[in-house]
Amino acid sequence: MNILEIIAKKRDKKSLTKEEIEYFIEGYTNGSITDYQASALVMAIYINGMNDEEITNLTLAMAHSGEMLDLSVFGKNVVDKHSTGGVGDKVTLILMPIIASFGIPVAKMSGRGLGFTGGTIDKLESIPGYNTSVNIEDFINNVKEKGISLIGQTMNLAPADKKIYALRDTIACTDSIPLIASSIMSKKIAAGANKIVLDVTCGFGAFMQNKEDAIKLSETMNRIGKLADKETICIITNMDEPLGSAVGNNLEVIEAINALNGKMADDLKEVILELGAYMIKLAGINEDIDKNKEMILENIQNKKAYNKFVELVENQGGDISYIEDTTKFAKAKYIVPVVCKKDGYVEELNARKVGEISGALGAGRVRKEDDIDETVGVMLCKKVSDEVRTGDILAYVHANNEELSAKAVKDLEEVYKIGDIKPKRLEVILGIVK
Amino acid sequence: MNILEIIAKKRDKKSLTKEEIEYFIEGYTNGSITDYQASALVMAIYINGMNDEEITNLTLAMAHSGEMLDLSVFGKNVVDKHSTGGVGDKVTLILMPIIASFGIPVAKMSGRGLGFTGGTIDKLESIPGYNTSVNIEDFINNVKEKGISLIGQTMNLAPADKKIYALRDTIACTDSIPLIASSIMSKKIAAGANKIVLDVTCGFGAFMQNKEDAIKLSETMNRIGKLADKETICIITNMDEPLGSAVGNNLEVIEAINALNGKMADDLKEVILELGAYMIKLAGINEDIDKNKEMILENIQNKKAYNKFVELVENQGGDISYIEDTTKFAKAKYIVPVVCKKDGYVEELNARKVGEISGALGAGRVRKEDDIDETVGVMLCKKVSDEVRTGDILAYVHANNEELSAKAVKDLEEVYKIGDIKPKRLEVILGIVK
Repeated sequence: MNILEIIAKKRDKKSLTKEEIEYFIEGYTNGSITDYQASALVMAIYINGMNDEEITNLTLAMAHSGEMLDLSVFGKNVVDKHSTGGVGDKVTLILMPIIASFGIPVAKMSGRGLGFTGGTIDKLESIPGYNTSVNIEDFINNVKEKGISLIGQTMNLAPADKKIYALRDTIACTDSIPLIASSIMSKKIAAGANKIVLDVTCGFGAFMQNKEDAIKLSETMNRIGKLADKETICIITNMDEPLGSAVGNNLEVIEAINALNGKMADDLKEVILELGAYMIKLAGINEDIDKNKEMILENIQNKKAYNKFVELVENQGGDISYIEDTTKFAKAKYIVPVVCKKDGYVEELNARKVGEISGALGAGRVRKEDDIDETVGVMLCKKVSDEVRTGDILAYVHANNEELSAKAVKDLEEVYKIGDIKPKRLEVILGIVK
Repeated sequence: MNILEIIAKKRDKKSLTKEEIEYFIEGYTNGSITDYQASALVMAIYINGMNDEEITNLTLAMAHSGEMLDLSVFGKNVVDKHSTGGVGDKVTLILMPIIASFGIPVAKMSGRGLGFTGGTIDKLESIPGYNTSVNIEDFINNVKEKGISLIGQTMNLAPADKKIYALRDTIACTDSIPLIASSIMSKKIAAGANKIVLDVTCGFGAFMQNKEDAIKLSETMNRIGKLADKETICIITNMDEPLGSAVGNNLEVIEAINALNGKMADDLKEVILELGAYMIKLAGINEDIDKNKEMILENIQNKKAYNKFVELVENQGGDISYIEDTTKFAKAKYIVPVVCKKDGYVEELNARKVGEISGALGAGRVRKEDDIDETVGVMLCKKVSDEVRTGDILAYVHANNEELSAKAVKDLEEVYKIGDIKPKRLEVILGIVK
């Protein structure tokens, strides 16, 4: 076997065997296969595709390319969730304490990630003292004792995926369904899950721009899950406008804490209930989705979920006084309203553009080394279908620089499309692919 | 413009503009575009193809990526020839003195090349004293004075082609017609030709394995020639068996000298006459191909071509006593006959395999740094359609190592396929694409 034969096969639209895929992943991980060879193969995969068996073999080879987190001590129903990414996505922060409040073990490693705002780990680090670098033994012990631990990726999980992911970015091969599906699933499998609920975002602010692609990606991941014996359910959610109100690190943490206290925007609530209900189902607690949603609302109402979050923060060394009083979180120097200039209805609020504005304020990072500014971002007061009048406040820009702040205000004025006819509220859950 | 957009366009089967192709070639030559990005684009070109305009723009961009040899002092009909490569291909050594004997200026830079035997320059260096490293001024003066100069590639011609050519080899993208065509034509254009005769070899020992592909490649190169205003004619020649009798450096030089003295194998003569006749036509000397062939035979007969070769060698510092007496050339230590073991007819003599045998004896090089052994190779006594009897000598192996020699003899016994029915002689000229 050699890499030239493997590249030539995929170039000629033939299927690769398990052994060929493993040979590639092993060689690329250890450096005996070069970037330019991997690049040629990735492009051939992009153009000529892969069948389900190939995608599954690629997923498993990437999952096994580094360390594997062993969560078998928690039984056969370890449920994980993952989102394909969006703007204002603070779901993990809210959902994982809810899940843990049902006694379902939550042992989750999250990434920092690149993008318009930080990842879950960056957001948790907004809480003073919260330690995201925990060794594996303590991590497992935390879950055993408290039922929940959220930490950074301290293990070398799926290094092949990391290399291929970074490569794809530089060769215009990001938006390939086989490559996206195998990337996501390899990380989840390496992270020890055996039941997976995926939030497949769809719309302006997501990887998937239309529902057809989102369904295709979902179906592909479900089939990988089936072949890899990891039951997988995909919830397709709308990402045309940002989720909830806050975009930015501290702002999103505060919104998450409010949500756990029962104050939740409608769209955010819908996503939380849908994902949570399926996680409870996959964990083997209860089959009935509607009933599960009621149970979630109950555990928010009775503070069990909130208390679990406090317990998590405390156990990881975080200062819980910030959770109890969110006004303690550091604030940006300038908080400037975006004022509506005509009467009408919000017709469109492009999530990607809001994300870009937030990123430009310093909320995200372009390179791994970049620092993020925890305090900056955007708070949305009006969303699609809301009635607005001249002088109403559409949003607030949180900035630490006057010039950037002025630019963000101007940009947001343009991103808010105001029309004369009231549009319907955006459908939040676009589909469930089981 | 950026490389990601360019890769994405070709990935999606769209046509690239002249500016985009130039941006890529410039960036790849100066290193601002990486190998892995070039690799992705090359694979996308391989799979999705290019139209004539794109191929021509790629050719011209590669031709202009380094120095350009200016031969305009010799007028508008500077004819060059090039072969797509074969086994036993000593055509340049014979043909260029013939062309020069008609007063057509011959200013040719040749490569060393990788392969089963050395390139034209290696073969010329078999003549003691022959200097292939001549500066451009002397090179041009030589042509002015003697009408001919054959030297090594002392200028940095088409560096982008060199980089892409080397890359293609490592990513299974060698056999792509747009990429082969643009590679050949870019080198010819950078080397100053404005009329080009191409020997497109076809068969076991060639890049092109079948006539359809050879015609496609020829048509592509003709169209590039037309669009680039460099009149181009392609002669498709048979490379199922080696051309002529000798395979190996000194052996081929001796065969070339014999040819200029009028002793030429039939297949070699046909190729020389066909290519030469079209070169004379393109040089504007005479339109009639049959007449041109007669004129060539005449200039061999009257020694004008041979004398031109002697003049060339002398002018470049070579020892002409070797030309006058070819027994002076160094010989291999072992010259071993390959004996026929049954009666019949030669049915097949696979050129690639003969080339590989010759390469294994040390006649070629795998890496640029490798040394070649000038003395080794194979002399073929029988070719396809020849009658053979048990005990006849099929060929001689020239080797400097007893073990390698024995292996070559054994391998050649297998490569000579002997059957009971006399096959037709192989057609030598398979087509002319104008």
